[in-house]
Amino acid sequence: MQKIRSAPLALALSAMSLSTPAMAAPPDVAGLQEKAMADEIAWDFVSDLTTEVGPRPAGTADEARGRDWAVARLKALGFANVRAEPYIMPTWVRGAETAKVVAPFPQTLIVTALGNSGATPANGLEAEVVYFPTIADLEAAAPDRLKGKIAFVSHAMKATQDGSSYGYFGIVRRQGPSIAAKKGAAAILIRSIGTDNHRTPHTGVQMWAEGVTPIPAAALSVPDAENLERMLRKAQMKGGKPVRVALTLTPRFIGDQASGNVIAEVPGTDPAAGIIVAACHLDSWDLGTGAIDDGAGCAIASAAARLVMKNERPRRTIRLLLAGSEEVGGFGARAYFAAHKEERHVLALESDFGADRVWRVDFKFPAAGAPLAARIADALAPLGIGKGSQPAGGGADIAPLVAAGVPVIDLQQDGTRYFDLHHTADDTLDKIDPAQLRQNVAAWATVLALAANADEQLR
Amino acid sequence: MQKIRSAPLALALSAMSLSTPAMAAPPDVAGLQEKAMADEIAWDFVSDLTTEVGPRPAGTADEARGRDWAVARLKALGFANVRAEPYIMPTWVRGAETAKVVAPFPQTLIVTALGNSGATPANGLEAEVVYFPTIADLEAAAPDRLKGKIAFVSHAMKATQDGSSYGYFGIVRRQGPSIAAKKGAAAILIRSIGTDNHRTPHTGVQMWAEGVTPIPAAALSVPDAENLERMLRKAQMKGGKPVRVALTLTPRFIGDQASGNVIAEVPGTDPAAGIIVAACHLDSWDLGTGAIDDGAGCAIASAAARLVMKNERPRRTIRLLLAGSEEVGGFGARAYFAAHKEERHVLALESDFGADRVWRVDFKFPAAGAPLAARIADALAPLGIGKGSQPAGGGADIAPLVAAGVPVIDLQQDGTRYFDLHHTADDTLDKIDPAQLRQNVAAWATVLALAANADEQLR
Ligand SMILES: [Zn+2]
Ligand SMILES: [Zn+2]
Ligand SMILES: [Zn+2]
Ligand SMILES: [Zn+2]
Repeated sequence: MQKIRSAPLALALSAMSLSTPAMAAPPDVAGLQEKAMADEIAWDFVSDLTTEVGPRPAGTADEARGRDWAVARLKALGFANVRAEPYIMPTWVRGAETAKVVAPFPQTLIVTALGNSGATPANGLEAEVVYFPTIADLEAAAPDRLKGKIAFVSHAMKATQDGSSYGYFGIVRRQGPSIAAKKGAAAILIRSIGTDNHRTPHTGVQMWAEGVTPIPAAALSVPDAENLERMLRKAQMKGGKPVRVALTLTPRFIGDQASGNVIAEVPGTDPAAGIIVAACHLDSWDLGTGAIDDGAGCAIASAAARLVMKNERPRRTIRLLLAGSEEVGGFGARAYFAAHKEERHVLALESDFGADRVWRVDFKFPAAGAPLAARIADALAPLGIGKGSQPAGGGADIAPLVAAGVPVIDLQQDGTRYFDLHHTADDTLDKIDPAQLRQNVAAWATVLALAANADEQLR
Repeated sequence: MQKIRSAPLALALSAMSLSTPAMAAPPDVAGLQEKAMADEIAWDFVSDLTTEVGPRPAGTADEARGRDWAVARLKALGFANVRAEPYIMPTWVRGAETAKVVAPFPQTLIVTALGNSGATPANGLEAEVVYFPTIADLEAAAPDRLKGKIAFVSHAMKATQDGSSYGYFGIVRRQGPSIAAKKGAAAILIRSIGTDNHRTPHTGVQMWAEGVTPIPAAALSVPDAENLERMLRKAQMKGGKPVRVALTLTPRFIGDQASGNVIAEVPGTDPAAGIIVAACHLDSWDLGTGAIDDGAGCAIASAAARLVMKNERPRRTIRLLLAGSEEVGGFGARAYFAAHKEERHVLALESDFGADRVWRVDFKFPAAGAPLAARIADALAPLGIGKGSQPAGGGADIAPLVAAGVPVIDLQQDGTRYFDLHHTADDTLDKIDPAQLRQNVAAWATVLALAANADEQLR
């Protein structure tokens, strides 16, 4: 209850503290936060990465250029043990993608293939569209309704601060294609898993269920999905005319390709004290430049670790993990775990939810970590960050570590705008607010400094 | 001074009057405004036009479907003398359009060809980019700087309520290509004439100056233009490496094609009292569905004229002019004027600036019209519309009438968002706010009812 009663004070402090950190924080944290609030390292990182490299799709030469770029930048920033750790992975690449309504209301639709989509013939396919308002409706459909037709599945996802609705509504993308394929559909179109109203469709990975033959699978931009829904209603009103769509998607698998993680370290003074992993992913979808997903996360973690390093060498080692191939199924996370699982990991964190401000901190700590959690929460309060009541979950690139029992902290970012941009061509530098980016660096530097120097045994 | 002193009262009234029109307005106007505020005709018009027809580029079969649709809809709404008036016009159509930076920072750029752009070879061209921050810099460039290169011209346009900066900054699009062509450039790229930050470039017409050989001319989306500017700065910092772009644009002219205007009337009781022209344009660019430009304008004018018609037959004829081929140079406007210039036009208005609320009314009236202007201003005040101090100018589709001396009223719409969407793929139905659309209908119905029944001689 005390936490709740003191919230207004914490908020009042936070409004002041962007320039004058709360006096209650330990001196080094106050100094770190002040430096973070003037940080330009994170901005320069994500600006240069998106400008000089751009999109970094997993398994491609562009992702490799991203690794080279990151190795050079992290060395220039003064980190130790900077290196790429290569592995190979099966690689899917986008091809042509066009769609148009042929009848009864001919017009172009803007689509983008989902990850691992099958291909149409080179000159496309044409079929009738069958509409399903939700994934449950698709699942309930009799197979004969879909045979040789194009399933079109919608949903009602809206923006949330914590991004929690992505799990639920994202099922349309993750499972819709396999369900439609099992029922004999010729292809599937989904309403983009997004909360914007721009003609920039949202891609994203989906995995074919065991034994399913891949079909062409694509997302319509939200305005196109709404237009197609209106067409279907209008066609129904005009005597039930079928709505026919011509679709061309020519993505393909190009076999096993080189991918890799990038590692950099702030070596701790006490090798026995264990490693803190600060993660993000370096790969991105191909449509945007991977600014908010996840150039920003790598920029935040790197800038924060560097601030801690410049301040005073910490007791524990802070290891940056800029993972590869996150977007297409966590190949980098598994490669990291396979190579490093025997090392003593005592804490993991990931930044992979854009660049808007951190508003909540969650922990998954053993009982012995409670005092540290309390110190961290108190030190974050001046930044306007409140302690949550749910256990932390971590991100995809630290998932194997978390599954193996490594403690985790989530610095939850404001996701209200995230799914406007996520996995679209609009994921570009201009979407990042430099002031909110710096608040992330301050929060991360606070957590890394306190955790790397804490006496508590976390594991 | 009285106008200014009474403004707060008018605003206070307007806040109330959306449901209860001001008592000062003549009874029929109050009733019209109340009906307009519940209007669904305008929304249905623009919803159905964008859903059932979609993009309507001038001179194409899609524009022709738009005319057929409009004739059917205007007949269904009960207008008299509904017909298309055909003419022919030289027609330009978009082809493929791709661009990428080849060196030193390879990545894709999103572009769209400007109207009347020349074509590259089918497999594209590759050349060094030369940057000009403004059109003045391009104009000042020595010709040898551009020979065989790609000119890239930026600008600093920001959103304005009255849209006035479009005239100034739009010169980059309208004149940039001819200037670059004269100096021997291989192609020109401009920063989109737009105020958004989405990867949806803004097209728009440009006319080649006399004697100039067309070159490929395209707009980059704003994020792409900003990225290219950063690349040029970075390349400069890294020893002045040239930035090379590969560009493919394959638009072409397809000769003279059928286009046309659509006309519909509310016949007046007194044929000698003259005609009021209520204009908009039915064609649109091909990238979006022509919702705000200018399906909304046609919807507003049509819904307002119908409200006046249903109320009481007016003394003067109200003639709807849904013009063709506005986007590519006003062929419809000239065809209308050529066919109808001998008729007695006493007033013209146009709606062609989106669907956001009317905030100001301007007049260009003879002295005899002053009492009518005052009555109109007073009747619009409850809708939150203030009288401006500049003469009205009209829109492109009534320009020949205005040039011939026909009085004109401008119901100025709020353009703050307009250039976020203008001439992009994002010009879609979801961008229209139904409440603001209805306020437009209320303003238009007010003006049409008062002007069509006024005793004043306007001409
Ligand atoms: Zn991510
Ligand atoms: Zn992602
Ligand atoms: Zn227009
Ligand atoms: Zn226009």
